[in-house]
Amino acid sequence: MNIGFIGLGNMGAPMALNLLKAGHALTVFDLVPEALQRLSEAGAKTVASPAELARSEVTLIITMLPAARHVKAVYLGEDGLLAHVPKGVRLIDSSTIDPMSAREVAAAAAKQGNPMLDAPVSGGTGGAAAGTLTFMVGGSAEDFAQAQPVLATMGKNIVHCGASGNGQVAKVANNMLLGISMIGVAEAMSLGVALGMDAKVLAGVINTSSGRCWSSDTYNPFPGVLETAPAARGYTGGFGTELMLKDLGLATEAAKQARQPAYLAALAQQLYQGFSADGHGDLDFSAIIQLYQPKG
Amino acid sequence: MNIGFIGLGNMGAPMALNLLKAGHALTVFDLVPEALQRLSEAGAKTVASPAELARSEVTLIITMLPAARHVKAVYLGEDGLLAHVPKGVRLIDSSTIDPMSAREVAAAAAKQGNPMLDAPVSGGTGGAAAGTLTFMVGGSAEDFAQAQPVLATMGKNIVHCGASGNGQVAKVANNMLLGISMIGVAEAMSLGVALGMDAKVLAGVINTSSGRCWSSDTYNPFPGVLETAPAARGYTGGFGTELMLKDLGLATEAAKQARQPAYLAALAQQLYQGFSADGHGDLDFSAIIQLYQPKG
Amino acid sequence: MNIGFIGLGNMGAPMALNLLKAGHALTVFDLVPEALQRLSEAGAKTVASPAELARSEVTLIITMLPAARHVKAVYLGEDGLLAHVPKGVRLIDSSTIDPMSAREVAAAAAKQGNPMLDAPVSGGTGGAAAGTLTFMVGGSAEDFAQAQPVLATMGKNIVHCGASGNGQVAKVANNMLLGISMIGVAEAMSLGVALGMDAKVLAGVINTSSGRCWSSDTYNPFPGVLETAPAARGYTGGFGTELMLKDLGLATEAAKQARQPAYLAALAQQLYQGFSADGHGDLDFSAIIQLYQPKG
Amino acid sequence: MNIGFIGLGNMGAPMALNLLKAGHALTVFDLVPEALQRLSEAGAKTVASPAELARSEVTLIITMLPAARHVKAVYLGEDGLLAHVPKGVRLIDSSTIDPMSAREVAAAAAKQGNPMLDAPVSGGTGGAAAGTLTFMVGGSAEDFAQAQPVLATMGKNIVHCGASGNGQVAKVANNMLLGISMIGVAEAMSLGVALGMDAKVLAGVINTSSGRCWSSDTYNPFPGVLETAPAARGYTGGFGTELMLKDLGLATEAAKQARQPAYLAALAQQLYQGFSADGHGDLDFSAIIQLYQPKG
Repeated sequence: MNIGFIGLGNMGAPMALNLLKAGHALTVFDLVPEALQRLSEAGAKTVASPAELARSEVTLIITMLPAARHVKAVYLGEDGLLAHVPKGVRLIDSSTIDPMSAREVAAAAAKQGNPMLDAPVSGGTGGAAAGTLTFMVGGSAEDFAQAQPVLATMGKNIVHCGASGNGQVAKVANNMLLGISMIGVAEAMSLGVALGMDAKVLAGVINTSSGRCWSSDTYNPFPGVLETAPAARGYTGGFGTELMLKDLGLATEAAKQARQPAYLAALAQQLYQGFSADGHGDLDFSAIIQLYQPKG
Repeated sequence: MNIGFIGLGNMGAPMALNLLKAGHALTVFDLVPEALQRLSEAGAKTVASPAELARSEVTLIITMLPAARHVKAVYLGEDGLLAHVPKGVRLIDSSTIDPMSAREVAAAAAKQGNPMLDAPVSGGTGGAAAGTLTFMVGGSAEDFAQAQPVLATMGKNIVHCGASGNGQVAKVANNMLLGISMIGVAEAMSLGVALGMDAKVLAGVINTSSGRCWSSDTYNPFPGVLETAPAARGYTGGFGTELMLKDLGLATEAAKQARQPAYLAALAQQLYQGFSADGHGDLDFSAIIQLYQPKG
Repeated sequence: MNIGFIGLGNMGAPMALNLLKAGHALTVFDLVPEALQRLSEAGAKTVASPAELARSEVTLIITMLPAARHVKAVYLGEDGLLAHVPKGVRLIDSSTIDPMSAREVAAAAAKQGNPMLDAPVSGGTGGAAAGTLTFMVGGSAEDFAQAQPVLATMGKNIVHCGASGNGQVAKVANNMLLGISMIGVAEAMSLGVALGMDAKVLAGVINTSSGRCWSSDTYNPFPGVLETAPAARGYTGGFGTELMLKDLGLATEAAKQARQPAYLAALAQQLYQGFSADGHGDLDFSAIIQLYQPKG
Repeated sequence: MNIGFIGLGNMGAPMALNLLKAGHALTVFDLVPEALQRLSEAGAKTVASPAELARSEVTLIITMLPAARHVKAVYLGEDGLLAHVPKGVRLIDSSTIDPMSAREVAAAAAKQGNPMLDAPVSGGTGGAAAGTLTFMVGGSAEDFAQAQPVLATMGKNIVHCGASGNGQVAKVANNMLLGISMIGVAEAMSLGVALGMDAKVLAGVINTSSGRCWSSDTYNPFPGVLETAPAARGYTGGFGTELMLKDLGLATEAAKQARQPAYLAALAQQLYQGFSADGHGDLDFSAIIQLYQPKG
C-alpha cells in the first residue's frame, strides 16, 4: 500500500521502518532533517511538508506527534493535511492526546470525506521496534477493519475500543490507573519492608492475593524483586516519569471536562510532578518509589 | 489434636467448625452465649473464660478477635491466657491487628515458653465456611511447620511471611494496596464511561494492559462488567467498606509508626471514611465507585 | 476619557456602568443584544464587533471575558482588536485567565505599540456594582500609573503586582490559597463540632489563634457562626463553587507549566469538582462544608 | 496556693517556674533527676512519685506530659494519682492529647470527687517562659472559674471551650487548620514566585485579600518575607515539624473516631511525615515549603 507517515521521533521512526519492512511504499515527513534522512536511507520517499504529503499518491496517512497542539496544527492548520488531502484518503492518528481533540479532528476529517481513526499505542520504544505495540483504536467498525492489517505490521494487539475518540479514552483510563497502581505498589512495598518483611516474600504474597497487579507482578518498583523490571537497572529504559506525567495531565484534564472527580489520579499526578521537579523526570516512572525511601 | 478456640464471630465460628469436621477435639470460648451454644451443638466443649480454656487440656490455642485491644486483653490481661497457659502450649492469633501489637504479644508468649504465630486471613466469611482461606503467617520456620497442617484444615493457601508480626505486615500491605487499586479502578472506569466508552470494552482493554489488577479483572466495581462481583448484586456480600476502612486505619497507623509517608493510602482511607459516614459502611468496598456517579 | 468596553456580563456590566457614572464616554460591545441594550440605555454607544470598537475614537479598551480562549479570540483573532486598533491605544484585560496567556497577548500588543495591562479583579458582583473591587495589575509601572485613575472609578484597592502577567499570578495564587483554606476551615469546624464543641466558641478560638484566616473570621462556612456569610443564607450569593473550580483549574494548570507540585491545591480542586458534579456548582464555594455533614 | 506539678520538660519546667514566681508553694515530680534538681534549686519541694505527690498537702495538681499513654499511666495507673489523691483536690492536665482520652480521665476523676480540667496550651517554649501561653480549657464553668487565676500566672489568654475534653478539641481543630494553611501558603507562595512574582509583593496581596491567614501574615514560610518568622533564621526555633505531625496524628485519629472525613488534613499529615522521614523533623513546621523548591 502507498502510505504517508508524519512524525519520525522515538516512536514514529521504528513504526515507519516496520511498515517499510512489511513491503509498503512509504512517503514521510518530519521537521527534523536527520529523522527524514534516516527513513530515506531505509527506502522511504521524503517530502517537505504535510501539504506535499497530502497531495502525493498515498491512500493512507499515519501521524505520530507529541501533543494535541501538533495534531491540530498538522491536520487543521491553514496549510495542513485536511486542506490538501483528496477525499477518500484514510487517516490514522497514533499520537496520545485528549479524547475531545481527537474527536474534533476526526469530525473535521469525516466532514470532508476522509475516514479517520484515533489509534494511540502502548508498549514503548521497545514495542515499536519489535512491532509488538498495542493499538487502542477509536472509529467505525468498517474503518477499523480496513486499518487492522496495516496496524498489525506495527503491533501485536489491535483493539477496537468503539467510536471515534475511544482509543484515546481507553489509553488515558488505563494509564491513569497504571499511574495510581504503581504508587500504590510503591507505598505497600516500602511500608512492608520498613516493617520488617523481605521484599520478594512480600511481592509473592501480593501477587497471589487481592493486591495483585501489573505494577507488582510484572514491573515491581522495589529493587531486587524482579530482574526484568527497570528497578533492576537503575530505573533506566522503560516508561519515563515525564510520559506518565503527561498522561496523568491528560487524564485529569479529561476528568475536568467530563465533570468527574479523580481524587487519587490528581494526587498521583502531583507526586510525579514533584518527583520530576526534583530532577528525576528521565527515570522510569517506577522510580517514584524513591519518594518512600528516607533521604536523611 | 486438642485445640482451644476463642472468638466465634462471623469468621471464627466457621473456622472452628472446620476444625471439628477435620476431627480435632475443640474447646471454645466467646462472650456471646449463642455463639458458644452453636459450637456446643456441633460437638465442641465450652468453657467460661480464657483462663479456664488455658488451663484445659489443649495443646494449641487459636484466637480470632476484632481488634488489638481485644487481643491484648485476652492474652495479656490479668486473668488472660498467658497468666494461665502451661508452658509449651502453642498459640496462633488469626485476628487482623497492627504488627507492633502482634509482636508485643508474641514476645510475651515466647518469654514464658509458649511459641506464638500471627496468622491473619483473607478470603472473607465465604472462604472461612469453605475452608479456603489464605493464612499469612509470621513466626519461626519451625513453629510455622508445626502449625501448617492445622491451618490447612481451615485454609487453602498457607504462606510463611517471615518472623513474628510479618503475617500482619503482609496483610496490611496487601489490603492497603487493594484499597488504593479499587479506587483507582473506580476512577478509571467512571472516567472512561463518562467519556463515552462501553464499560465491558474498557475493562477488557485494562485487563490485558498495564492497568490490569485484581480489582479490575476479578472484582470490577462497575455494574454489568462481571456477573460474579458484588457490583452485580447491589454491592451486598463481599468485603465490607467498614472492614476496608479498618485495614486502611491499621496501614496508616503502621506507616506513622514506621515514619513512612503513605499519600495515596491516607487519601483512600478518607474516601472510604466519607463514604461510610454517608451511611454506606455495610456495602462491599467496591461500592466506593458510587462516589464517581453524579447525585445531582 | 473615551473608553471602549468588551464583555458586559455579570461583572462587566456593573463595571461599565461605573465608568459611565464617573463621566467617561463609553463605547461597548457584547455578543448578547440585551447586554448591549442595557448599556445603551445608560448612555453608552454600542458597536457591532471588536473590530469596529478598535477603530472607534477610544483611547483605552477594557475587556472582561470568561476565559483565555475568549481573550485570545478577541485580541488575537483574524478580525480581533490587535488587527484593527491604532498604535498607542491602551489595553486592559480584567478577565481571570492563566498568566502565560496574559503574557502572550500583552507581548503581541506591545509589539505593535499598544501598552497592555492584565488586571483581574476580586470582590464579586457586589464589589463590581459598588465600585469596591480589588484590581491586581500586571505591567509596567508607567502603564500602571496611567491606568490607576480609571481603575479607581471601578475599584477601591488597585495593586501593582509587577510585570506583565503578574496580576494573574497574584489572583491565581491568592484564590488557590483561599480554596484550600476554606476546605481547611470546613474540616476543622466540622470535626470540632462533631467532637462536641459549640461552633461559635470554636470559631472564636480559631479566630484568635494560629488557625485564623479570612475563611474563618470573615466567611465562616459553618451555619450560625456569622450572620453576614453565605452560610447564613443557604449559601446563595457570594463566590460560586464553579468559579472557585475554574480558579483552581487555572492554578493547577499553572503549576503544571511551572513544574511545581501543588498537592493540596490539586486535592481541593477534585473536592470542589466532585461537589459540583453532585449538582451544587451554583452554591457559594463555602458550601463545600456539606461534604463533611453525614448524608446517612 | 499549694500546687503539685508533674512533667518538667521543655514546656512544664518554665510553667512551673512561673507558678513559683507568682508565690505559690510547689511540689514537683518528674522521671528525670536533673529536671527535679532544677526546680528544687528554684524553691520547689520534690517527691519521688505521683503517688507521693498525690498524698502531699497540695490542693491542685497540674500535669504536663508528652502523650495520652503517659497521662493515663500517671492518672489511672495502679499507683497513679487517682489511686492516692484525696477527694476534692483539683486536677488540671495541660498535655496535648486526644479528646476521648481526656474525657475518660476526667470522668474517672469526677467519679471519685476530683474536679478535673483539660487545658492544653499554645505558644511554645517561648510563651511558657514568658508566661504568655494560651490555655484552651475544657470542663465545668465553675471549675474553670476556680482555675482561671492560677492559669493566668502562666498564660495570657485563658479560654473556656465548654465541657470536659473541649480544650483538647479546640486545640486539635485549630492546629489541624494551621497545618493545612501553612502548606496552602507554601504552595501559593512557591507557585507565585515560580511564575515570576516577587515574594514580598505576593505576600502583600494575599495579606489584604481572601487568602489572608496567620501562616501568611505572621509566620510566612517564604524566606525574606518576614524578618520575625522562622524562615528568616533557617527554620530554627518555632513549632517543630514533629510537633505538627503529632497534632495532625491526633486530628486524623479523632476524625476516625468521629467518623468524619478529613481529606486535606490527612494529606497534610502525610506531607509532614514524608518531610520528617527525610530528616527535617527538627525544623520549624513552616520549612515544609522546602517540598516546593526543586532539589534537582
